[in-house]
Amino acid sequence: MDIERLLARNRPAIDHAIEKAVPKTLTRLRLQSLVGKPRYAFALQAAQSSVHEPIWDLLERGGKRWRPTLFLLIAEAFGAHPKKLVDLSVLPEVVHNGTLMVDDVEDNSDLRRGKPCIHKLFGVDVAINAGNAMYFLPLLVLQKQRKRFPASTLLAAYEIYSREMVNLSYGQGFDIWWHNHQQEPVTEEEYLQMCAFKTGTLARMAAKLGALFANASPKNLELAGEFAESIGVAFQIQDDVLNLVGKEGPYGKEIGGDISEGKRTLLTLHALQHASLEGRRHLLTILELHTKDPQKIRQAIQIIEGAGSINYAKQFARQLVLKAWKKFAPALKKGKAKDALEAFAYYLIDREI
Amino acid sequence: MDIERLLARNRPAIDHAIEKAVPKTLTRLRLQSLVGKPRYAFALQAAQSSVHEPIWDLLERGGKRWRPTLFLLIAEAFGAHPKKLVDLSVLPEVVHNGTLMVDDVEDNSDLRRGKPCIHKLFGVDVAINAGNAMYFLPLLVLQKQRKRFPASTLLAAYEIYSREMVNLSYGQGFDIWWHNHQQEPVTEEEYLQMCAFKTGTLARMAAKLGALFANASPKNLELAGEFAESIGVAFQIQDDVLNLVGKEGPYGKEIGGDISEGKRTLLTLHALQHASLEGRRHLLTILELHTKDPQKIRQAIQIIEGAGSINYAKQFARQLVLKAWKKFAPALKKGKAKDALEAFAYYLIDREI
Repeated sequence: MDIERLLARNRPAIDHAIEKAVPKTLTRLRLQSLVGKPRYAFALQAAQSSVHEPIWDLLERGGKRWRPTLFLLIAEAFGAHPKKLVDLSVLPEVVHNGTLMVDDVEDNSDLRRGKPCIHKLFGVDVAINAGNAMYFLPLLVLQKQRKRFPASTLLAAYEIYSREMVNLSYGQGFDIWWHNHQQEPVTEEEYLQMCAFKTGTLARMAAKLGALFANASPKNLELAGEFAESIGVAFQIQDDVLNLVGKEGPYGKEIGGDISEGKRTLLTLHALQHASLEGRRHLLTILELHTKDPQKIRQAIQIIEGAGSINYAKQFARQLVLKAWKKFAPALKKGKAKDALEAFAYYLIDREI
Repeated sequence: MDIERLLARNRPAIDHAIEKAVPKTLTRLRLQSLVGKPRYAFALQAAQSSVHEPIWDLLERGGKRWRPTLFLLIAEAFGAHPKKLVDLSVLPEVVHNGTLMVDDVEDNSDLRRGKPCIHKLFGVDVAINAGNAMYFLPLLVLQKQRKRFPASTLLAAYEIYSREMVNLSYGQGFDIWWHNHQQEPVTEEEYLQMCAFKTGTLARMAAKLGALFANASPKNLELAGEFAESIGVAFQIQDDVLNLVGKEGPYGKEIGGDISEGKRTLLTLHALQHASLEGRRHLLTILELHTKDPQKIRQAIQIIEGAGSINYAKQFARQLVLKAWKKFAPALKKGKAKDALEAFAYYLIDREI
């Protein structure tokens, strides 16, 4: 199963659905269909320039749109017709891009997908506000489904959505706090929880919503969520691995950027426990330096590699996906979608960029 | 009816309900009751320091908590027992404080309620993330109401909430855009729409939720929303008036701050239409200067006053409330709550700070 091809094949329909949820170009009628008739008068140009333009500047830069595809595969593997659910599959994708926009302000980043971050182009005020708009605009899609689904299903969708958004805030909170207080010890379990909240949670949202709209049982809904969370966490671990030993990405990611930032990851946490005493001290010193010196970064990577931490992390991610799939697979209908889901899980951890 | 006293009397119960929704001090159990059992392990200290501490730093600074009181009065005037709905009344209040935290970052403000803004104390990253957490944490309150209300009622609550949050993004978008592109003409109607979206929308959320949980009819729900939006808009206009001719506030607001910021308000827009040609030119020059020179600010205020714009705005706000009340009053049960609602509406526009 070629997942890259599957993603590419799904993409036009997904992008079309995103554009229905968040129009690229506003007209009075389109704005009205989002928020109702204005009591006074819309400032159409301001709405376009301050909300929709920055949103589409980011959306058009790419991204794999893997969350909607995950949603659709899960729905299909639970017996639903994916074509009928494309409009709903975009919820986690729109909000994901919103969090990128806002996180980039929080992290004071310069580049996103190879171009200056939205706040660099439009200003911090516009970026935060447009990013926040993306947290709620997708929910308007749900409001158009009143005739297609019973109230209890739609209510469950809001519950899933808001719960995952709260999780996301805690995940980001952990990450920010550790970044700002690097002397504080972090355990592997805490780090993994951060990943579950930060990277796992939108995957979980996608999977649970896909299962929900396919009428899966509450038990299967939980299984879908757990599976997606696992591949989300594994995805993050693979990201951390690639940050140290991957190729220079086309998106302006630097090898060893995590070392420069002094980031705690599964790899550095493992190495700080398992390297030689001298190695641990040296690694800690480099992490605290926040250096961009390539030689120091190479030394840090050597220590991490020498402690077996890269292998450990790779194995950890692989085991996580393996176990999650084993638990989830029996719940699914045999067929193309199920096969694709398995391939999809491994695709996320085997990718090299 | 002494509204200040009513607000003070309601406050302890409201604050208690806020603390139930967003604990001041986290324990593992409290965090678990919010987001469920962790799969790995909570970083409790990080969650407390990066999310709950900044939230309560702002919440404890005060604020009148008028949105929950509006919610409760409306619910009571539709026949509900307000004591049973206090937990739900805090939704618009928590999110309101979240928007203050985030807006202060967007506006690069220094002070909020007489103290340094949250981002000045905790950092921009913490402030945005904690503010955003306040957009979704209150929704967890709804998830605890599954046994008390039918799915259709809870679904309607989510729909009201998310629609108003989208409105808020557009309102803030208009405001930001005009602030950054001051040469662009703005009409009074567009300005009023911005007020409806920015200040009216959380009042509308409060009123509609109050009516909803009191089982009001869809028609009455709309009437409640329209009434609250009107007093929200009137509140904003009164704010603009006080900014020019009010007392120096205890919260660090400066008289004429809107002139320094070159802000378009109902007053400046009216004056730019109705002052003498010379007055208009002079006012525009001062607005574009972004000056803090007290003499220039006094001159601007004189032009605005001379054009009759202060009276115009005061009358506009008063008429808005008068008409809204006339339309809304017949829907309400006679009694204490109804009387208080009328007094409440005038309190918001007659206040002097």
